[in-house]
Amino acid sequence: MTTRIVVIGGDAAGMSAAHQAVRSAASHGRSVAVTVLEATVHTSYSACGLPYWISGEVGTQDELVARTPDQHRAMGLDLRTGAEVVRVDTTARTVRYRSAGSEQSLDYDELVIATGARPVTPEWARADGALKPGLGVVKTLDDGSFWLDQLGAGSLRRVVIAGGGYVGIEMAEAALARGHQVTLVARSRLLSMLEPALSAQLADTLKAAGVEVVLGSAVDGVEHDAQGRLIAVCAGANRIDADHLVVALGATPATEFLTGSGIPLSARGALRPDPSGRVIPGVWAGGDCCEVRHRLTDSWSFLPLGTHANKMGRAIGENLGGGELTFPGALGTAITRFAAPGGYLEAAATGLNLAQAVSAGFDAIEVVTQGTTASGYHPDAVPITISLIGDRRTGRLVGGQIVGGRGAAKRIDVVAMALWTELTALDLAWADLAYAPPFATAWEIVSLASRRLAERLG
Amino acid sequence: MTTRIVVIGGDAAGMSAAHQAVRSAASHGRSVAVTVLEATVHTSYSACGLPYWISGEVGTQDELVARTPDQHRAMGLDLRTGAEVVRVDTTARTVRYRSAGSEQSLDYDELVIATGARPVTPEWARADGALKPGLGVVKTLDDGSFWLDQLGAGSLRRVVIAGGGYVGIEMAEAALARGHQVTLVARSRLLSMLEPALSAQLADTLKAAGVEVVLGSAVDGVEHDAQGRLIAVCAGANRIDADHLVVALGATPATEFLTGSGIPLSARGALRPDPSGRVIPGVWAGGDCCEVRHRLTDSWSFLPLGTHANKMGRAIGENLGGGELTFPGALGTAITRFAAPGGYLEAAATGLNLAQAVSAGFDAIEVVTQGTTASGYHPDAVPITISLIGDRRTGRLVGGQIVGGRGAAKRIDVVAMALWTELTALDLAWADLAYAPPFATAWEIVSLASRRLAERLG
Repeated sequence: MTTRIVVIGGDAAGMSAAHQAVRSAASHGRSVAVTVLEATVHTSYSACGLPYWISGEVGTQDELVARTPDQHRAMGLDLRTGAEVVRVDTTARTVRYRSAGSEQSLDYDELVIATGARPVTPEWARADGALKPGLGVVKTLDDGSFWLDQLGAGSLRRVVIAGGGYVGIEMAEAALARGHQVTLVARSRLLSMLEPALSAQLADTLKAAGVEVVLGSAVDGVEHDAQGRLIAVCAGANRIDADHLVVALGATPATEFLTGSGIPLSARGALRPDPSGRVIPGVWAGGDCCEVRHRLTDSWSFLPLGTHANKMGRAIGENLGGGELTFPGALGTAITRFAAPGGYLEAAATGLNLAQAVSAGFDAIEVVTQGTTASGYHPDAVPITISLIGDRRTGRLVGGQIVGGRGAAKRIDVVAMALWTELTALDLAWADLAYAPPFATAWEIVSLASRRLAERLG
Repeated sequence: MTTRIVVIGGDAAGMSAAHQAVRSAASHGRSVAVTVLEATVHTSYSACGLPYWISGEVGTQDELVARTPDQHRAMGLDLRTGAEVVRVDTTARTVRYRSAGSEQSLDYDELVIATGARPVTPEWARADGALKPGLGVVKTLDDGSFWLDQLGAGSLRRVVIAGGGYVGIEMAEAALARGHQVTLVARSRLLSMLEPALSAQLADTLKAAGVEVVLGSAVDGVEHDAQGRLIAVCAGANRIDADHLVVALGATPATEFLTGSGIPLSARGALRPDPSGRVIPGVWAGGDCCEVRHRLTDSWSFLPLGTHANKMGRAIGENLGGGELTFPGALGTAITRFAAPGGYLEAAATGLNLAQAVSAGFDAIEVVTQGTTASGYHPDAVPITISLIGDRRTGRLVGGQIVGGRGAAKRIDVVAMALWTELTALDLAWADLAYAPPFATAWEIVSLASRRLAERLG
């Protein structure tokens, strides 16, 4: 008997699930028929890469596409693009989708929901169901094309960015690289999961590079002239002249089509799969339309990121084919950088910041350590600042953040590994990390930061 | 009652022990009097930094000195330089040392041996108790001065390097940076703990940069002309014209003065302290004169490295002052790079290589994974090769190695953390590591390498 698998969504989680289901079934002597329904005409592209395409660092759209629809089809999948699912019936086990103007139905034995997340667009940004002129988000390849058209050539433009998260900072970099005048407006601080002192270093770097940074203020309106051209962006008392507004205010699960399906959704509309990827019998979900278990708080967190999507999809596919694989949750590890001729700073975080740790019930303290990425006398040495959060009751690390120059931020992985394995600060301080003058100080800065935290934890 | 502590050796382990003993005693309400005996006139310098001083990347000797004798004295230590210990009497608890031509005695309650390691110099390299003309090692600041004189200015010289370890490779870089003609001769392959394929990448990089690399051949003699000037280096059938020979054939514990003291030494002459740092009652030891416990094999290993020395010294000092701190052993984590206009490669290793794992009794396999350090489309992406070694019986990782371009090798710390916490390859594959296009692929290369190993381990 062949298991009919329908996957909704043809990006990281969906395609990982589809291909892994085929591989897993083959290795477990089972038979599966996989159909993938993708609303757009694109599959398996890197949304994270869009800012680097817009900036000109990536030459063509094709480079952002890991696999085209035709490549997926050549690997044996029944992939239908331009197929937008409008309804799921979990009793009859059918999905209804719109394609080329008409609606069709498809029966399934197992359904995989991998529709991702869509950018948040506030009421003031929309008119007639679309973004107002001059406004845009950064999510799809079409969004990338749009911004490349707007910013890629021609005269100096005034670009305002609403949002101080990853996308906002990366788009500030891209617009600056294209020679425009850039203002970034953020409700609180830049990368709000960073501690204030580290976030301030990031803001200083953007300012040094020529970005106007407006913090503690949320964009709440736009003004257009009589010809319908954007002329200004409003944020509280601020009125900022603008030709373009990048709306980078976060993402929300793309699950509207599930309303009324009986499939349970969280308050923010996210699916909550168990570690195997299953939501209810016959229905699985992975990727940015889901919340994931946070390993430190054992609570549900919305962490839309390609790396989780790939892993969740792989686990679902393996399980659908008869294997056994679980997604073990996440720590919220994240990294980005701001790079411009006038300033360069990397930033990364993992686990909880101080406020999150306190609110999760830890007896938390923070220790900030300054140092260098290489021995002080070596020309590759650049400053690095590490904030580590520990729990006084257990001595355990519960979070960490890094900002610094080239080579600083990827050290966050060492902190992530310590969190993953529930180490104490003292354990991490004494771990055998790599040292040589071009790469570290003799007390590796992560070890030193952890040693200082351990001393404070007592 | 004041505890009289005598520390022999004024570098990383010794000075860490001395200062930490003072701090620890103060915080535990004890009284200590610390005397440090250092044979040279230098303290707390970075031997690892010497090649970068010789190459010109570090401007002055002073930059390599973390603390001068006067700075240590200003912090309250009785530091005696030019004081060479000649005998230890553990029954009478006295040390005898030579200083300014005469011998003196010093009583101790607790003795810390931190004399480090000295470079191995074979019989053929020596005459009348010294190295023959044209030959030198790379260990002390005076060695650095010597090489700076020889290579730092003037005409093109033919420099031969005996030894394919860290020092050999770093000195090849330094001599090349000074514009000389460089030949490196190594008994087996470069960095012999690397798997052959990874070591070959390193050899190719040196060759591409203009270094002549002679592998599988050991230097076994030198030729001088009638004026006593070095003219050639012999290695088996090879005779290489040479003006200079860098002897970089490893190090050996500097413990000759302990012969007859009754303090137990290993076959290679190393001290073997317990985790607290104690060798026998009243005698402690740390740093490069010691072997350390290897956490994977639970055997004694000689891993002379400043990072272990700092930690061992700190533990000894803390324990001498009434605290409690243990050195938890090592994994053999190590890193270096070769950098020249014609080639750049980073190399790192941790844990066991395949041969070591097999000989330690693991049912070991190796999986080599190629990838990039950033998303393939991002301009910062450079190649990276990861070799992971796993044990089929337990699924555990037992070792890893990395070679690659800028930003590749420090990822070894993630593998080291997995070894430190005894993770399986599958555990590491699913850990939440940082991803963004300038820093990693969506399946982080370490995660991908570990996933592939896990699949092979079954």
